[in-house]
Order: sequence, then structure tokens, then C-alpha cells
Amino acid sequence: MQKIAGSFLQRTAPSIRACAKRPITQPVRRCIPQHPPRFYAVAANAPLAEKLRVNGDRLWDDIHYTAQYSLPSPGGITRLCASAEDKLARDWFKDQVMALGADYKVNATGSQFALFPGEDLSIPPIAMGSHLDSVGTGGKFDGPLGVLGALEVIRSLKEQGIKTRAPIVLINWTNEEGARFWPFLGSSIVYAGQSTVEEAHASLTHDGSGVRMGDELKKIGYVGDGPNTFEEFPISAHFEIHVEQADSLEKAGKPIGWFTGWQGMTWYSVSLKGDDGHANTYPMYGRRDALVGAAKMIVELEQLAYDRNGYTTMTNIRSGPWGACNIQSDVRMAFCLMNKDGTLLETMGSDIEAKVKGIAAMHGLEMSMTRDVHLPPGDFWPEATDCIIRACGTEGMAAITGTGHDSTMTTRLVPTGMVVARAKGGWSHSPKEWTDKDDCTKSALALGRAVLNFDDYMKTKAA
Amino acid sequence: MQKIAGSFLQRTAPSIRACAKRPITQPVRRCIPQHPPRFYAVAANAPLAEKLRVNGDRLWDDIHYTAQYSLPSPGGITRLCASAEDKLARDWFKDQVMALGADYKVNATGSQFALFPGEDLSIPPIAMGSHLDSVGTGGKFDGPLGVLGALEVIRSLKEQGIKTRAPIVLINWTNEEGARFWPFLGSSIVYAGQSTVEEAHASLTHDGSGVRMGDELKKIGYVGDGPNTFEEFPISAHFEIHVEQADSLEKAGKPIGWFTGWQGMTWYSVSLKGDDGHANTYPMYGRRDALVGAAKMIVELEQLAYDRNGYTTMTNIRSGPWGACNIQSDVRMAFCLMNKDGTLLETMGSDIEAKVKGIAAMHGLEMSMTRDVHLPPGDFWPEATDCIIRACGTEGMAAITGTGHDSTMTTRLVPTGMVVARAKGGWSHSPKEWTDKDDCTKSALALGRAVLNFDDYMKTKAA
Repeated sequence: MQKIAGSFLQRTAPSIRACAKRPITQPVRRCIPQHPPRFYAVAANAPLAEKLRVNGDRLWDDIHYTAQYSLPSPGGITRLCASAEDKLARDWFKDQVMALGADYKVNATGSQFALFPGEDLSIPPIAMGSHLDSVGTGGKFDGPLGVLGALEVIRSLKEQGIKTRAPIVLINWTNEEGARFWPFLGSSIVYAGQSTVEEAHASLTHDGSGVRMGDELKKIGYVGDGPNTFEEFPISAHFEIHVEQADSLEKAGKPIGWFTGWQGMTWYSVSLKGDDGHANTYPMYGRRDALVGAAKMIVELEQLAYDRNGYTTMTNIRSGPWGACNIQSDVRMAFCLMNKDGTLLETMGSDIEAKVKGIAAMHGLEMSMTRDVHLPPGDFWPEATDCIIRACGTEGMAAITGTGHDSTMTTRLVPTGMVVARAKGGWSHSPKEWTDKDDCTKSALALGRAVLNFDDYMKTKAA
Repeated sequence: MQKIAGSFLQRTAPSIRACAKRPITQPVRRCIPQHPPRFYAVAANAPLAEKLRVNGDRLWDDIHYTAQYSLPSPGGITRLCASAEDKLARDWFKDQVMALGADYKVNATGSQFALFPGEDLSIPPIAMGSHLDSVGTGGKFDGPLGVLGALEVIRSLKEQGIKTRAPIVLINWTNEEGARFWPFLGSSIVYAGQSTVEEAHASLTHDGSGVRMGDELKKIGYVGDGPNTFEEFPISAHFEIHVEQADSLEKAGKPIGWFTGWQGMTWYSVSLKGDDGHANTYPMYGRRDALVGAAKMIVELEQLAYDRNGYTTMTNIRSGPWGACNIQSDVRMAFCLMNKDGTLLETMGSDIEAKVKGIAAMHGLEMSMTRDVHLPPGDFWPEATDCIIRACGTEGMAAITGTGHDSTMTTRLVPTGMVVARAKGGWSHSPKEWTDKDDCTKSALALGRAVLNFDDYMKTKAA
């Protein structure tokens, strides 16, 4: 892969770093007024963007064809990071981009880069990226639409003879979901300087089995020598399509849109330890039952969503000793808190910590609670989002994403924007996840046009 | 092993049967007035019983020597049924009884039978039995004291030239604990006609992995052709030592005693199913979060112990999908209810079922709840218990066991009694489990004397 020197960006990449155990606390640039997005005037697309068309049939076929790379999951996809199914999807992706003449590399954390030249090779490429991995109960769109939509853009540009000034790179980021290995955004977090290759390789599965992401990537042959960080391989911008995972577009009757920003999210781990004892015979008085404590904590977690108008989810619980004979003495849990308001998000964290401490004290349990990942709310870059707004035209509307994406990492570095596709009923991380063919097509077209708009914007800026 | 024909018992073995999914609902014979046991006159031991002594040093050494057959567990034992450690303990047991000249057999569910002749081979043997398997967080006494105490009795009888009229059989019962494979009492349940060899072989581990007890027993070489049922191999009586697993003896300052009976116990499985969905983005309203429902159920289960003055324990929870990305849609739990009052035990069952139904309805969850095993409260046989009372003399007192034992199965068939040894702090199923050496010695002596008293009782009855 050619190393493209220099960058139009004068902005220094953040020096803060965070691994699984260190919170990502640095606030990111906030630049788009969140309310009301309608104040933005919808300017015209750049001429090349206006010219672009995409092939919706081909994209739809790709979405359903690649869904075969999955464990059995009727209606959905089970393609956990670095699994045999993930390897098949990656191999397919490689074949497609090689057929299009890509300069192709895999980096140390398994991300696939497919670079296509522009007229001026001195400019860092404009990136289109997302992920092909899924959660255990994934749908067909969360991730794949981003990668396959971008692939469709590359094919259409080539077919229609549309040449960009900047090179373009298509990226399939590794372990976006964090469904198998934690933390999530497992490769883009390294690219953004928030973690290291070593830390990403040491990412563990949620089941306590000690399986590491680095070893599993190696097993499927996806540890390469491609670029790992922004410093090694700078990009000019990052664009990504994603299904909304909520229902605001559906309710408004809009097929596509853009994410102005994201709500704040924090992930915690909690451990409660009590005493082993006989389930039938040990007196109720004097028990140190960690599972009873955990249950009270989960009930408090639900209450917290009422109290602070946020979202709360307990996403993992493991309890032992297993069986039918023992008071449960060892419970480990993972949960997340979400709030659009960063101050309220912090309050939610201190609220639940106080509750867990109280529950632990009342039940004589030892407790520990760690904040594993913290993403304060933020907004994407106006330079990038404006290109999407223009690409959507009258069909688009603004939304806020409720979760993190690879774009939440790249936005720490370069202009980043996200194209949103309408989702049925807000379902995601579920086989019920669905986006109509026409909406998929429109989102891919908006992605391609946004990239061309950004290419034009850079050209104008450079002039 | 010689087949001993005939039995002094005219009582027909129960025809009822129960497997893992069928409750054991048949009430058993209740024959000892539970309160107050002091109304029993303490008669003298039979002459041979009075003569018996046991070697407490040897027993104590055996307890600590065999504790090596364990996964690492400081202070305790981890010797799950049909594990490599279980095999080592079984092999050791075989060597000991063979050295004593036993007629030795292993049956199809892995139980080890060591038969020693009496003066009259036409009489079904008097059994001493317990188990060498432990729970995951086991102590050194729950199970081993019963088997090793009985082994000490056999050795002492032999050394002291004490001959019984009836043969004696020492039994190491398989999977008493149910810690790895459910249901518990995995071999004595078959012996008592409450299940079949096939059902016992099909017993599954608690982790949903599908591992079967029969396959695991085969792997360690413990599927034999010995007798599986009472019909194949009748016994005259069954005696067992067990640590109290509660603190009534300790509080009363008594080293040993007898269980008059057992409290009622019921084991349930519950499954709650909701919807998969994104942990961060899916609106709180409309979620069908199975783990939130499960947590509320566990809180209700604790309340139930207050309401009905019983014991309640949630002993197992598994929740999925795993990870940090998903609303939990699938939760499986196992719990047990305990009450000394059989009617209140039934009420507890219907109480919690109503609560779970309500919680499921309020959270839009599908629920199923099955009663896997049900043991109504009952009492051991006066013929057997009287022999223990006489053996304990002034050092003993009555207690009630809070859980099931292999004796809870044999008592459905023949006179059965349990010798109790004082336990520190009521700890059991914990490395904290402890019984002093002197109390172990006294319990073994009481076991031996009880067997000799029963042998004398049968002789008198036959005369």
C-alpha cells in the first residue's frame, strides 16, 4: 500500500489514550448545533456528486448473499469477530476489492484497507468504513450496509468513470461490536490513538474463558502488516452508512438522514463476592448471597432510567458456583448507561455506584465497580455532515445515534460524518432488524455523493 | 457379587417413579414424632455395639489424605461427579475395600458396592452409604465423612473380630450432590425406583453444554454391571453419617446426634424469554428485557422466605446473548424452596409462580416454570433411628436435616437412619466446612454401634 505523505489537516491527533481499563474521557469537538438541524440551508451537490448513480439491485444482492457467512440465525446474522464466519466474509470482501484493482492491506488488528487512487496522490484518502462483524443476534444491516454500501459506491464510481481528486480508501474495521471481545471499536480505537495493538490483541471474551482477540485473529489469518494508526496512514475524512437503530426516521417518514452526533455512553463492570454455602441448609440469616445483591442492583438500574431520563442496560451476568446446590457467592456483571446530557450521564454513574455500595453493605458483600469505557456525548464535524446534508437533499433529516461507531473514533481525528438509513421499528442487534431495499439504495447514493461533495470541498479549500 | 435372595422386608418397594422432569411427590412414611425427641427413652446398646471401638486417628488421616483428590481448593474439596478427581477417589476407595476382602461391584450408574459377609448369608445386608463426590466449593466432610466413617467401621469390626449376623455392604453412591449433573441423588434415586439407569445416564450438566453423566462415567471407567435397584439387590437397612450443615448441635454443645427427618424441598427451573435488541439504542419503552424480569423474580424469592418462614435460594442463572451490546432476551434459572411444613412449601411454590407470571406479563416476557424435584418433608424410620439414639447415648441429640441425602432415597424402601456430626458455624458446601476430629470419631463409633444394634434388633425380631 502506498504511503501517502502529508495531510491537509493541521489538527494534531489527540494524545490521550485509553485502553479497556482506562476511560475515554476526552471530550471531542462539538461543532454542529444540535437543535434545530433545519437551520442548515440545503446547498446543491457538487457536479460529480449530482451525476452519480448507484446500483440498488447489486447492493441488495450483496447484503443477502453475504448473510450466508453466519452461524445459523434465521432472518439475521451471527458473525462474531474473528470467527470462521467472519473469515469467510473477510475473504469475500478481499476478492471484491481486488477485482476492482484495490491496493489492499490488512493491519495488525485485522482491519482491511482497500485503497483506490485519486488524481492527486499527495492528498490523504477520503475513507468510507464500517464493519462486517455482528453481535450474536445480529441483523443483516448493522455493519454490512456500511461496508457493502461503500463497496457499491466504489463500483459505481468506476463504472461511471467518475474520478476523485483525493484517493479513496474502503475500510472493514475489526470488532466494531465488541460482542465477542471487549472493548468494542477494537481496531478504530487503535487507529485513533486511544489504545494500542497490544491492548487490542489482549482483548478478552466476555465469558471469562481467557480467549484473546489477537490469538483468534491469527487463527483466521487476519493479522497483517497494514497501517495501524492515523500517524502511519492519515485520512482526510471518514464517512459511514449505518441503520438508525431507533425509529425517528420511520416516524418522520424519511428514508435517510445524518447523525448530528451521539448520546453519551458509559460501560461498567461490577463484581460482587459473598460466601459459599449450602443452598438448602444454610440459615437465611447470615447469608452473603451475591446473586440477591446483583438482582437488587439490576432493579435499581431500571429505576435509574426513570430518575435521570436516560437508558440503562445490564448486558452480561455470570454467577457461580454453578449448579443447584449453592448460595451464589460470585457474580460478575457488565452494564451500560446512556444519556444525551453529559452531566446527567456522570450523575447516573455516581447514583448507581452509591446504590451498589449500599446493597453490598446491606448484604455483607465485597464489591468492585470499574468504568471501562466512557464516551461523553458529542457531534460529528460540520464539514463532513454538510456534505451528507447536501447529498440527502429533501429526503434527509437529522438524528442522533444512541451508540458508538468506528466513526466515533475517526471523528477524534478528521472530519467525519454518518449517513443514516431508516430502520423498521428501531430494531437492531436482532434478527428483526430491517431496512427496505430502496432505503439501502438511497443511503449508498448519499454516501457516494457525500464523498464527492467532500472531495469538491477539499479542492475548493486548497484553491 | 453374591445375589442374596429374600428379604425380611414384607413391604413392597414403591411403584412410583420420577425422573428429572417428574416431581417426586409420593409422601414417605412418617413414623417418628418430631417433637420432642427427648420423649424417647435411651436404651442400652446391644452387647457387640457396646464392645466396638473405632480408630479416630485413622479416620482423620483418611479424611485429609483423600482430600488430595480434588481440583485446587484451599481448605476444601472440588471433586465433581465423574471428574478425573472423582475417579482417583473412587480408585482409592476400591483399593481400601479390596484390601479388606470385599466382594466388590460397580453398578451402571457408577455406585461402588463393597459387600462383607455375615453369619447368615440369607439376610439382605445392612448398608452404610454416602458419597465421595463434592460440590464445586465443597468442604472435606460433606460426603467423605459418611463413606470414610463407614470404612473405619468395617476396619474396626474386622480388627476386633466382631461378626455380624447380617452381611454388611458399604456403598459410595454416585452424584449425590447434583453439582455437575442434575438431578441430584443420581444413583440412589435409581436404586429407590424413582428413576431409571437411562434417565440417570441422560442427566445433563447445569451449563447447558449438553454433557451427559452416563458418558462422563464411561470416560472414567465407572459404568459397571453391579446391582442398580433394590429389587436386584435388597438391603435390610441403610445408615449414613453426615455433618449437620446447620448449627443446632454446635449451639447445644452436642458432638453427635441423629436426624429425625428432613425439611421439605422443591427445585424449580424457570425460563424467561424477551426480545433481542440494542443495549444502547433501543428505547426503554417497549423493551422486553428478560434479565430485568429475572432480577425482580430473585427479589421476590427473597421476600418469599420472609412471608412463609422458609428458605429460598436462586442457585443458577444463565443469561444471553452474552456480551456488552444486547438487551438480555433469554434467561434460565434454577431455584429451590425449603420449608419444614409441607403445606407451606406448596404455598411457597404457588406464591412464586404467581409472582413470576405477573412479572412476565408486566415485561411482556414468555415464561415457563417447571417443578423438577419435589421432596415433601418426612421422617426416617424409628427402627433405624432408635439404633442410633442408643448408639449416641447421652452425647446425642435430635436434629432435622435441611436437604436431601442418599438416605432420603433408601428410606423409601427400608429402615434408614442418619448419624449427625457437629458442624462449625453451620458451614457446608464451602471450604469453611469443618467438623473436629473428636466429633468425626464419635460419629463413626455411633454409626458402627447403630449397625450392630440393628443387627441385634433383626436377630431378636427373627427369633
